[in-house]
Parts: sequence; structure tokens; C-alpha cells
Amino acid sequence: MVKAQAMEALTKALGKENVITEAEDLLCYSFDATADMPSQVPDVVVVPQNINQVVEVIKVAREFKLPIYPRGSGTNLSGGTIPLQGGIVLSMKGMDKIVEIDADNLVAVVQPGVIIQDLNNAVAPFGLIYPPDPGTVATATMGGSVSECSGGLRGLKYGVTKHYVMGVEVVMADGTVVRFGGKTVKNVTAYDMVKLFTGAEGTLGVITEITVKLIPAPEAKKAMLATFESLADAGNAVTEIVRSKVIPATMEIMDNVTIRTVENFAKIGLPTDAEALLLIEVDGIPEVVEREAATVIKVVEKNKGKIKVAKDDKERDGLWAARRSALPALAQVKPTTVLEDATVPRSRLTDMLVALQNIAKKYNLQIGTFGHAGDGNLHPTILTDARDTEEMKRVHQAVDEIFKVALELGGTISGEHGIGIAKAKYLPLEFGEQGVDVMRKVKQALDPENILNPGKMFK
Amino acid sequence: MVKAQAMEALTKALGKENVITEAEDLLCYSFDATADMPSQVPDVVVVPQNINQVVEVIKVAREFKLPIYPRGSGTNLSGGTIPLQGGIVLSMKGMDKIVEIDADNLVAVVQPGVIIQDLNNAVAPFGLIYPPDPGTVATATMGGSVSECSGGLRGLKYGVTKHYVMGVEVVMADGTVVRFGGKTVKNVTAYDMVKLFTGAEGTLGVITEITVKLIPAPEAKKAMLATFESLADAGNAVTEIVRSKVIPATMEIMDNVTIRTVENFAKIGLPTDAEALLLIEVDGIPEVVEREAATVIKVVEKNKGKIKVAKDDKERDGLWAARRSALPALAQVKPTTVLEDATVPRSRLTDMLVALQNIAKKYNLQIGTFGHAGDGNLHPTILTDARDTEEMKRVHQAVDEIFKVALELGGTISGEHGIGIAKAKYLPLEFGEQGVDVMRKVKQALDPENILNPGKMFK
Repeated sequence: MVKAQAMEALTKALGKENVITEAEDLLCYSFDATADMPSQVPDVVVVPQNINQVVEVIKVAREFKLPIYPRGSGTNLSGGTIPLQGGIVLSMKGMDKIVEIDADNLVAVVQPGVIIQDLNNAVAPFGLIYPPDPGTVATATMGGSVSECSGGLRGLKYGVTKHYVMGVEVVMADGTVVRFGGKTVKNVTAYDMVKLFTGAEGTLGVITEITVKLIPAPEAKKAMLATFESLADAGNAVTEIVRSKVIPATMEIMDNVTIRTVENFAKIGLPTDAEALLLIEVDGIPEVVEREAATVIKVVEKNKGKIKVAKDDKERDGLWAARRSALPALAQVKPTTVLEDATVPRSRLTDMLVALQNIAKKYNLQIGTFGHAGDGNLHPTILTDARDTEEMKRVHQAVDEIFKVALELGGTISGEHGIGIAKAKYLPLEFGEQGVDVMRKVKQALDPENILNPGKMFK
Repeated sequence: MVKAQAMEALTKALGKENVITEAEDLLCYSFDATADMPSQVPDVVVVPQNINQVVEVIKVAREFKLPIYPRGSGTNLSGGTIPLQGGIVLSMKGMDKIVEIDADNLVAVVQPGVIIQDLNNAVAPFGLIYPPDPGTVATATMGGSVSECSGGLRGLKYGVTKHYVMGVEVVMADGTVVRFGGKTVKNVTAYDMVKLFTGAEGTLGVITEITVKLIPAPEAKKAMLATFESLADAGNAVTEIVRSKVIPATMEIMDNVTIRTVENFAKIGLPTDAEALLLIEVDGIPEVVEREAATVIKVVEKNKGKIKVAKDDKERDGLWAARRSALPALAQVKPTTVLEDATVPRSRLTDMLVALQNIAKKYNLQIGTFGHAGDGNLHPTILTDARDTEEMKRVHQAVDEIFKVALELGGTISGEHGIGIAKAKYLPLEFGEQGVDVMRKVKQALDPENILNPGKMFK
């Protein structure tokens, strides 16, 4: 339990209204969106309204040796915001202002509590978009998605969060406030600290302001649905579309398990006998869209796929509703949904899909796979029940093997969900102990007392 | 002088042919392309042929407490490769293999000694390009340009070097070998160490292999020359082109001093009475190029500019020859050319251009300004004579003021040349002592004995 003195200091600094101590309220901060994780109720949740209050929280934490767990909406998928050691949850949702939209420089400046979709709504009247597009765009915060370096559906053409973060203001573990980067497209002034804090999962500093790049909204879009009788044909089509110099805005895949589950859930007329389907969207100016769609159709047909082009916005929305149903549909099959994000080079997509089928068979598990085929970023989703200890043992073995295969194929253990608690043990597989040690040195240099999100990323 | 033992150890590890000790050879490594810098002859230059030899060099350096100065072609512009404390220059030009071109994944893997243009030549048959395009593309190495995070002419549309580095292999200061990143578009596995080593100027580790992203080559290009009677009109045209949702591949500016000097040097028919000119190139598929060119013409004319479209490749090449002549033309006016790269948000371009004119007047100096207008990345170029100590005093005052103004306008002290020796003293201006201290902690954590490129970046 936090000492009464610490609680008093927090209340004095932030006001009673920004300090949460009721047991039933604290419970909401004991977990995040990740399955199969330990939960832990924090001692206190604070909701600073400005940077000075963040600095004050850090001072109190240091004085009373309490860990700090920064948190946005808690939609993260690797256990990154769970307050493993109790202490203080630092909710950034009180700092939720869009500070500036600077259309001439194609940038926006936001506080960390801004919801991603709210930023997009605010820049839309300027004809601009903020491209990073994680599935949780309507609930996740900018601070959380920058700290986790969220990916999403548009990674292939538009990149991910780190490609759009131009500047950050950060409160360091010693309470000092620093700013790196800014509004200039070019900036090579010493180390790229902006990128170091992006994806650092709140372990190196607390982000209190973010400058992001915006881009002109594409004028036209065309969505297509391609179905295949074999995984290999689908995988080959993905590679060949890119080889044809068409970079779709999104190129999503669903395997048969996912197709059948989604259809059963949403009744939208998906072909349940298809072994795989691709949802492809090209965007840009109308001439480009026409041209690229024609290439996609040609490649899909060459690879023995059947393709259907959405003829209007309604059909397009229907296709994307199907894609967005994938996770909720799979999640309702069994009580526990273990969602992974192993990622391979695009050309190894077929190998990975086949390996996932074999792993499902080997461990006698139900695995539905969907994901961002254009990025080689798959979401094998194991449908299970956390209360079934025997099956969970097989789930853990299967997850181990999924990461092993992804690395063997030249991939990475996390394409877009981050490390948190869930993947800390796999880090040495990817980097060796020596590589992990390099990262640990950076952590120790910037947070020597280990007060920021302790217990995450490193075992 | 390096102890005989150290020299013996280096010769044993690398072979006599890869260890340079002749005084007249060493002299070539005592300086780089930066004007107005101290020079220092190293004790020895080594040219490792593989990563094991790099590791051996680090072992010797640690044993004999010798500093290591990694170097590519030495074309860098902030004194970054000058061996300030003598010791070992580590030339990476012996490791110059293109390891792999993986067209299906749109990536290439190269050793650090590969010349940028050689990579572009090698990927051209696949219809691909490596977009970063510094002025020294024909001579600079991949290792050097990654370590300096080179910019160039295509930053606005295509970004700079850091946007294309996907993976690195690095020998750390303690001799361990680590690999970060790889071929996957998405990768959020712990800290973004790839970006930390990119632009670290060889102070954190020695890069021995680089994985870079490639993109499809644009099918068509159109170059245009716009001339203006006022700097403000030119600056406003730049902002309005982007506001019209056209992102040109390049958008270069030259002021009147530069125009007259280039014309005098190259006799290519530039309008010597124009106050500013813009060289604009749009690229993409032919339909897009036509459409974007039409928008550019409309915006230029609205802003009282005259515009000429290159009607064929020959005229296009002529325009770019003019742009490429800017620095050599300015450089032949006076013995010393102090080239800066202060960068501001694009919307503040006119303010910066006017400020530069005023600074030239105030300090009674000849300053020609050209640069990447679309990025807000200007190259004010002071034409002077390093032997004229009185004038050099004014040059240094002018440079101080240039950076001060750039920061006041929300810019940065280095858009693309890096810090090295030249700008170390300005770092606290941008980040405060506390921000510099964060970076220094990272340096100390990864190179505690300060053997990698000592004397750079930090005062």
C-alpha cells in the first residue's frame, strides 16, 4: 500500500479529482486488452491535466520509490500497461488537447490523451489524414499508439506510427523535461531520440506532447475481394502484386478458419469454402486507382483467384466490415483469444501460413489466421480457454514455435503489438543476449532507478 | 605515435596490405569535405575486408586505448570523420559488396563501403530505386550516408536516409556484434535501435551491414523552372503548391547571388535579374505527372512567377545541371566556402530567406543561398577566405545568428549535414543542456570508454 504521505503528496499536486483510489475504480487499471496475462491492481491512478503535474507525479514516485505505469486507453496487446508491481498508474487521458493543426506544414501537435480517430476527424476538413490505422483507432490514444508504435492496415503503402512521429516532448525519469524533433521534414541534429521514444512502451520517459506528420487524403479508393482455393496461390498473388509495382493501401488476408467464423458471425456472404481470401484496396488519384485495380485483377486471375470489385461505397464498407469482424468473430468462439503478430518478409508469407496450419495440427489447437499480408504481418489467433490448463500448455508451446518459425523465415517476433510482458522472454531469440544487453544499457542509462513501467520488455 | 605493438597487432589481424602508415597517405585522412575545420593526421588507417577484421581492430583499439574514427568517402559536411585525437581511422571502403537485392521484398542488403550510386545502378534493372539522394551520391558510401542520415533533393516526397534503413549489423565499442531490424516492413520488437544507429555519426557503433528499403522507380517525370521577382513570392509559391496537395519529388530554390554565380560559371541561360528561382520536379505515373504539373503552373503564375516546363530529357538534364552547379559555382568565387544547412518549417521559408539577406548585410558578407525549399532545408553558403582572420570572425558571428534565427522560426540547426565538430557547440541551443545530457547518457552507456569517434557531437 502506498504510504499515506505519498497519497497526500499526489493529492496536493494534482487535486483530489485527479487521484483515483477507490478499489472498484482501480480494478479497471489492473489489466489491458492482452489475453493470458497476470493482472495487478495499482495502488493509485493519477490523471494529470498538464505537464507540470506529470513532473510532480515523477517527483513523488522517486521520493517514495513507487513504480509508474503510463497508460492511454489500455487497448495494447502485449501486457504493456499492466501495473505489475502496483504503484502508480499514470493515465494520460486528462491531457487530451489537439494543440495545433498546421496544414501548411502538414503537421499536427497533440497531447498524448487525444484519441487517434479524433485527430483524423479534426484534420479531415483540411483534406488531410494521419495514416497510422490500428484496429483500435476509435479508442486508442495518440500517446499509447506512439509508445507502442502501432501498425495497422495501411503499413505497406503508408508505413506505421514511427514514420509519422516528428517530435516529442518527454518527461524523463529524473523529472527533467526535454523536447526532440519538431516540424521540419529534415532533422539530423544528433541522435534520433524521437524514434527512440516511439515504441519504447513508456519505459524510457513519459511522452507529454507529440508532433505528427499528416498527408493529403487520397481522392479515390477501390476495394476488391479475391478468393483462392489454396494458401499458396493467395501468398503468390500478394508477392506478385507488389512485384508488378502496385503498392496497395491495404492487402489483408483471412484463412479458411477465419472466413468461416466471420461468416458464421456476421452473415455477409463470404465464400466459406475458400482456402484464403484477400481484401485489397488501392487508393490515390482516380487515374492511378483505375490502373492499379486493373493490375491487381490481372495478377489475382493469373494466380487462380476469383476477384470481385466493390462497385460503390456501400459494397466497400461491407468488405471492410468483414475484415473488422475477424477478431471479434474469432473472439466469440472460445473464452480466450491469444492474438499474435509474428511478421515475416512478404515473400515468405506462404511459408508462414503453411507453418501455422501445421502448428495448429501438431498441437491440436484451433488457430484462425488473418492479418496484413502486404506487410507479412500475420495475426495467428489461437482460440482457447485460459481455465483449461492442459490446453494452455499446448497454446504456449504453439506460440513458442510460431515465433521460432517467424525468426527462421527472416521475420520478427513483433510486427505491431510490442513486447511488454508477453514477449519479453523471446527477445534474446531475435537479438541474442548481446543485442538485448545493448537495449538494456539504454534503459539503465535513462531510467537508472527503473521506475518507468518496470517489469516490461526485459526479463 | 601508436605503439609498435599496436601496429603489429593491426598488421597481424588485417594483413600488411590493409594497414596504411605512409605519411603522405595518412594526410588524405586528416580532413573531410567540411570547410573551416581543424585537421589532424591519424596514426594509422586500417581497411578491414570483413566484420571479423572490424572486431579485431576494436580489440586492438581497446587494448592500446586508441580512438577509432570510422570513415566512408569523407564527403561529410560537419567535420564528422576528422580524426581529432589521432589514433585509428577505420576506412570501411574495403567492405563494398552488395550482399543481396531482394526485389520481391523491395529490399537490398549492402556492406557499408558500397557507393550510393552503385546501389542505384544495381537495382535499376529491377525497376527499383533507393531514393535518398544527397549531392554526393556518386562518391559517398552507404555506411557514411546512413551514419550521417543524409538528406538530399527528394526529402519532401520521399523522405531521407532514415526512412529507408530497415536493418543494421553493428560492431559495438566492446567488440560484440549485434543485429537489429531486418526485411520486414513492420517491426516493433523493443527499442528502435536501427534508427538510433542511423545518424549517430559513428559514435555508438561501427555499422558493418545495412538493409535498406527500395521503391518502384517513378515512370514519368516533369521538370519545371519558375522565376520570381521577390523572395516572398517564391516562398509563398512553395507553401501553396503543397497546400494544393501536390508533393513534388524535388522543389529547389536559388537566390539571386546563387543564380548570378551559377550563370557566370556555367553559361546556361539562367535569368540573372530574377530574385529567386524554383526548380520543381513532379514524378509518378504519367497521368499524375500531367495533373500535378498543371497545378504547379497555376500556383506559380498566381504568385507572379514565370514558369518554363522542360520539354524533353535534354532540357530537364540542363535544369538539373544548373542546380548541381550551385555549390561548385559558389565555391570557385572565393577560397573558402562555409556551407550550412539550417532548416525551418516550410511555411517559414520566406522569413528565413529574408533573414539570411539581412545577416549578409549586417556582417558585410557574401552569402549565396540555395537548397531544398520543399523541406525548408536551406543551404546558406558564405563565400570567404579562411586566411582572412578578420572576415572569419564575422563569418562565425553570422553562422551563430543563422542558427539562432532557424531555431526561433521553429527549425533545427541541422537538416542534413549532422553535428560532428562543426555544430557541437550549438546543440544546447536546440535541446537545452538537459536534452543534450539525455543523448550523452546514451553515448556513455554504449561507448563508456569513449573510443568511437571521440570529440564529435558533444562538446
